Amino acid sequence: MAPIQNPRIIFNSIPEGYPIPGETLVVDTSESIDPDTAPLGGGALLKIICISVDPYLRGRMREPHIPSYFPAFPLHKPIHNFAVARVLRSENPDVKVGQHLYGWLDFTHYQIVDAEGLKKLRVLPEGTGVPWSAYVGAAGMPGQTAYYGWKVLEPKKGETIYISTAAGPVGSAVVQLAKAAGLKVIASAGQEGKLQFLRELGADVVFNYKTANLEEILKEHAPIDIYWDHVGGKTLDAVLPRMNLHGRILIVGHVSSYNSKPDPVYNLDQFLALRIRMYGFLVTDHEEQYGKEFYDVVPGKIARGELKYTETVVHSLEEAPQLILDVQQGNNAGKAVVVLEDN
Amino acid sequence: MAPIQNPRIIFNSIPEGYPIPGETLVVDTSESIDPDTAPLGGGALLKIICISVDPYLRGRMREPHIPSYFPAFPLHKPIHNFAVARVLRSENPDVKVGQHLYGWLDFTHYQIVDAEGLKKLRVLPEGTGVPWSAYVGAAGMPGQTAYYGWKVLEPKKGETIYISTAAGPVGSAVVQLAKAAGLKVIASAGQEGKLQFLRELGADVVFNYKTANLEEILKEHAPIDIYWDHVGGKTLDAVLPRMNLHGRILIVGHVSSYNSKPDPVYNLDQFLALRIRMYGFLVTDHEEQYGKEFYDVVPGKIARGELKYTETVVHSLEEAPQLILDVQQGNNAGKAVVVLEDN
Repeated sequence: MAPIQNPRIIFNSIPEGYPIPGETLVVDTSESIDPDTAPLGGGALLKIICISVDPYLRGRMREPHIPSYFPAFPLHKPIHNFAVARVLRSENPDVKVGQHLYGWLDFTHYQIVDAEGLKKLRVLPEGTGVPWSAYVGAAGMPGQTAYYGWKVLEPKKGETIYISTAAGPVGSAVVQLAKAAGLKVIASAGQEGKLQFLRELGADVVFNYKTANLEEILKEHAPIDIYWDHVGGKTLDAVLPRMNLHGRILIVGHVSSYNSKPDPVYNLDQFLALRIRMYGFLVTDHEEQYGKEFYDVVPGKIARGELKYTETVVHSLEEAPQLILDVQQGNNAGKAVVVLEDN
Repeated sequence: MAPIQNPRIIFNSIPEGYPIPGETLVVDTSESIDPDTAPLGGGALLKIICISVDPYLRGRMREPHIPSYFPAFPLHKPIHNFAVARVLRSENPDVKVGQHLYGWLDFTHYQIVDAEGLKKLRVLPEGTGVPWSAYVGAAGMPGQTAYYGWKVLEPKKGETIYISTAAGPVGSAVVQLAKAAGLKVIASAGQEGKLQFLRELGADVVFNYKTANLEEILKEHAPIDIYWDHVGGKTLDAVLPRMNLHGRILIVGHVSSYNSKPDPVYNLDQFLALRIRMYGFLVTDHEEQYGKEFYDVVPGKIARGELKYTETVVHSLEEAPQLILDVQQGNNAGKAVVVLEDN
């Protein structure tokens, strides 16, 4: 085969607010690759099948000196995220042609990964009936976030949970875990289609945070035993006085300040009054403890239709920068994913 | 004996900011009692030996409909707090004349407690060499707060702890626990005498929060593994970015908002970045678990001089309202206590 174009999404400039397609992130088509002959150096050539788009990516588009839970993306290099790829060629004994691998890969079509990098990728099972895109969603990092976070919270039957951005891939998995465990579920999202999905999942109280009065709804359904927080800022501040004694808050994201300065929070005196516990949570901290159990349990539930999810899919890399922006603005529904191939 | 005056401190009006002596709290001398003949109704007549003055009392001077961790003081009734009293007369088989009892008692000289109330009081050991006033301080509620909170935090040798209002009865006990456990201790207070006491206790970094630059000091000694928070507001906000990965914060008080509206806190996005855990803590929640151990261990340490403390003492009830205000403004040093008798 002659060399073919290998487009990539490049981190071009550090955004002030929202990441702007064509400015923050640009499509670069200057590179090409010959998949048949490109030297592998002991590694493998992968074809990207699908790659995830997640809210947390915004945090990586920052000045490199600012510390955070994942490293900043280097400027003028391809961005990467959780992806599934098929092995096209391999010089590595641990990786076979035709296998599907999961892990951090570039926003590109073809990627050569060296022996060290291959060790960090997980070999996925074949023929399970689970779509590959689910392995970056309900059966991937977002699903793990829900599953591991649920363990940390030690929820009890009969408790009340409030989940913000509940229709996303993490939130919708938490809704289903909570309903299965016998909790009362309060769930919010920002679009009618998302609200309908939450009703189908069995959430007891569903509301549009853009139009409803959050304080009134919380007051009506208080006290809240568990707040699963993806938002932070004003939402967290409104929830605090409505928490129950010994309530727990899991801080999984803070999308309200990803693209702007954080809102002030005033109601922290509730921590003492109610003996609230608040936990900052990152999925990778719990991988070793719960990772095996997750892959033993969750893909099977997806294959049997017991764990539901929705997706917003685009089919080209060129659409990825806009999808990344849409996720920051809540304009996607469910798991956002770039699907480049089905198999 | 003829009836004698039995002065009491009455909760006279709900304060807006600081509690004002003579307005919020008034000395009432209209009541009298005959200690020899006053009917006991199956209870006991107690003589108050000493009564504690604590920062948390401000929170009880509120509108009764506002929920909090302890009930609001009823208006126009005597206020109460942790106290030690001697039994003068008893009609109750569980309580003997001459015994010393600990628990919530009124700001008064003589108090008749019924059988139900006597069950809530703890009989203190006699002849231990521990002054009675210590039983409302280092061997009482503040000491328990330090002791139980320390258990919750699971500190490790070599970690760094920052303690705000460190020279108070809780903070100074925590400083000593932390040094004994091999932690690096950063401690702040607002008076030179308090700073000197903290140096004597072995705190590694001692500073005056009124004159030093908190952010600079934290930056120099960061990262902080444990923040023992009595203050909240701006102090908490400054500490958050200086916490270590998997740092823990114990919210034991929030004196910055006892007498005014809470300051905004902006840096909560650090919870995710650093996977901070923050616990609202109230001593009474842990009484059942650690209470016996505390009384087995701590009074002995005090008697042997192994656990140090300081006190600000007044010797009349009439001075109590001013002492209550002084504690809110940080004008006392160490444990504030009204001592009416020595024995």
